[in-house]
Parts: sequence; structure tokens; C-alpha cells
Amino acid sequence: MTTLLIARDQGYTCHALSFDYGQRQRAELEAARRIAQRYGAAAHKVVRIGLDDIGGSALTDAAIAVPETPTEGIPVTYVPARNTVFLAFALGYAEVLGAFDIFIGVNAVDYSGYPDCRPEYIDAFERLANLATRAGVEGGRFAIHAPLIRLSKAEIIRKGIELGADYSLAVSCYAADAEGRACGKCDACRFRAEGFRAAGVPDPTRYQAGKRVRSRSGRRLPE
Amino acid sequence: MTTLLIARDQGYTCHALSFDYGQRQRAELEAARRIAQRYGAAAHKVVRIGLDDIGGSALTDAAIAVPETPTEGIPVTYVPARNTVFLAFALGYAEVLGAFDIFIGVNAVDYSGYPDCRPEYIDAFERLANLATRAGVEGGRFAIHAPLIRLSKAEIIRKGIELGADYSLAVSCYAADAEGRACGKCDACRFRAEGFRAAGVPDPTRYQAGKRVRSRSGRRLPE
Repeated sequence: MTTLLIARDQGYTCHALSFDYGQRQRAELEAARRIAQRYGAAAHKVVRIGLDDIGGSALTDAAIAVPETPTEGIPVTYVPARNTVFLAFALGYAEVLGAFDIFIGVNAVDYSGYPDCRPEYIDAFERLANLATRAGVEGGRFAIHAPLIRLSKAEIIRKGIELGADYSLAVSCYAADAEGRACGKCDACRFRAEGFRAAGVPDPTRYQAGKRVRSRSGRRLPE
Repeated sequence: MTTLLIARDQGYTCHALSFDYGQRQRAELEAARRIAQRYGAAAHKVVRIGLDDIGGSALTDAAIAVPETPTEGIPVTYVPARNTVFLAFALGYAEVLGAFDIFIGVNAVDYSGYPDCRPEYIDAFERLANLATRAGVEGGRFAIHAPLIRLSKAEIIRKGIELGADYSLAVSCYAADAEGRACGKCDACRFRAEGFRAAGVPDPTRYQAGKRVRSRSGRRLPE
């Protein structure tokens, strides 16, 4: 949502792309549809990709649980090569549209240590994109924009609110229920709640009944 | 098929990956299944990916015809970012398996000029793979092998036959019928037939009734 608002603010016509990749919760796809419509995307496409055929992640394999406490190293919610698959599709879609600017909302500050969220990864994909495509070979120049990559979660939230974001629409939780309500326990919930707290902004996240992110001292965070 | 035989000959245990990407003909998926089984792949997975949701190619959009004569430049059978999507999935699958060697049968000699078949593209993907993944960050080293990339079609055919390939099993045609019989007119048919001719090897390709690749002078090629 924040990335869409930034791209729109920079004057881009936005063709939004979401992926139905067998993720554990699918409320984020419905949320993406509402967000694309609300914030003026020219189109929104949901592409089905069989990452669940491969498995290997808590997000795509029901047999692997989503951790409810922080873990050492890269967590089991890492989906092997996920952003590479996403960007490859985005590249194909851009080429079909005749577009050269691809935006992705990855973040390498308040994050879980996923390798495919780092600036050097984004740079390597941009280089690949210009070798991979007819449009690149024929003289076009693809750019991969990751406007959130060096921001803290608090900075992202402040930027989004400045551009009119209603974060109650956005689902971050890895284990959201069918209505998009958050578990309050996973990494994504923790980073998000800390972001609102650090930004000094009320957190509009809808939590599942009786669930809410607790602060580090074990107390529930204030509403 | 040839790439599988080469990888097996080099001692690799092979987990074969095919893509149901909305391609015009699906006989190649059935052929891939038979080939994987016949030539000792340890596994064969067919992954569904929605490249037809994006379109933009004669291979994924029924409204764009497959050319029956050679065209200038990169032809309309080019599928935007196709090999990037394929390799991204292969990378994810390799990481789940704990494998580091990815084989792809691209060729940059007797080919249609697709940008994602060139050595510089393969090198850029290999670099990306090692930045994109947990396995790469944790000290593993992915290698993308493209053993056919600098061979002529005749050399590929000779190599395959030396390793026991039965090319009557392999479907190359962009517009094969449901039984895998070739159209004899598309680029893929032309390059394949020329390869058998140049290799001095009988061409076992099964053609649709009344169809057969014609030589440059317009005469039918000898059987």
C-alpha cells in the first residue's frame, strides 16, 4: 500500500500485481484488491503461481508452523526464491505493458533477515532484467524501485500516512484469519506494532479476538 | 532430454521440473513426463504458473499466431521473462532440496534470438541466485549449468544420441497437436530438422499428417 502511494505520488500509472502462491492466509489478496482500487491503481492482477508445489516454508507448507517468538537467523517463514519469482513475473508483465519501472515494497531495516530484501539483491535483479528481455536488448532500461528498502517501519508508516494511507486496510500478519484479522504473535505482527509505537501513531490493525501484540515487557501495547 | 542425459552422465541425481505456463500446446508436458521416467530422473514435478495471465506472446496468447516463416529480430514466440520465471522456480526448488546445481537446456547458437538464452544472461542469473537465497547467504554456491548453450543443434543431437537419447520422444514444436506431432513450419521445427540434417542422422520427429519441414529450396527434406 505504501509503495503504491509513493509510486502514484511520483506520477506513475500503476498496474498492481499480487500473487496467489499458496500462502497460508489469503486475506492479503482480498486486502490488495481493495487497496489497489481505493488508491487508484489502473489495474490489479492476481497471478496464480505454484510455490506451494515446492514447499519448504512455514508460509507455503501447512506442516511447518509460523513461529510465535523471535528465532535466530533467517526464519522458517522465508519462502525460497519468493521475491525472485515475484520480480520475474513483474518483469514479464512490465514488458507486455511496455513499462520499465517496477516497484517492490521490500524493506531491509526492520525485517526478518530475508536475503531477497537487501539492496544488493535488488541491484542484481535490475541488472538481470536488462539482459533477460527483448525490451532491454532493444535499448530500454528497466529500473527496480524499492522505495522502502532503507526506511525503518516507523518511517514507512509516517510516509504512508502523509500520503493518505489507511493502514486498517492492510494485512501484514502471516497467520491472518479469513477476515484479515491479525494473530498478534508472528514476526510480521511484531514489526508492524513496533512501527506504529515508534512512529507515535495509533495502530489501526484489526486483531483476532483476545489477541494483540504484547510489548517486550510482556504487557499489552496501548491501543 | 539432452540436458537431463548430460547431467546424469556427470553423476548428478536429477529432480526434473516442467512448467504448465499456459503454453499453446501441452503435449510437451506429457513428453517431459515420459522422458523424465525413461532417463532416470529421481523426480519430475510440473508446476503451474500463470504466464498466460500476462500474455504478450504467441505461445501464451491464442490471439497471436505462431509464425510459419522466419521473421526479423526477436519473434512473437518470445515469452516475456519466461526463463527468468523458470529459473526462479528452479532456484526455489533447489533450495528446498538442498541442491546447488541447476541445469537448463538453453541454446544460443541455432536459436531464435531470445535474450534469455545467452551466456551473459545465465551468468547474471547465477550471480542473482547467490544473493537471493538463504542457502547462498549461508555459504552455499549455486551454479547454473547450460551445457547446450554454445553447441549447434547438430552437435546437441550427436551428443544426445551418444548418451542414448530417443528423439522421437521429444516434442520441440510450438504448435504440436495433442499427440505431440509437429507442425513442420514453426521456428522450433525448422531448427530441429536442420539439426538432424546437419548431424547426418535420421530425423525421428513425428509430423502431423501431410506436414513435414521443407528445405530452403522448398523441397521436402528426405526422411
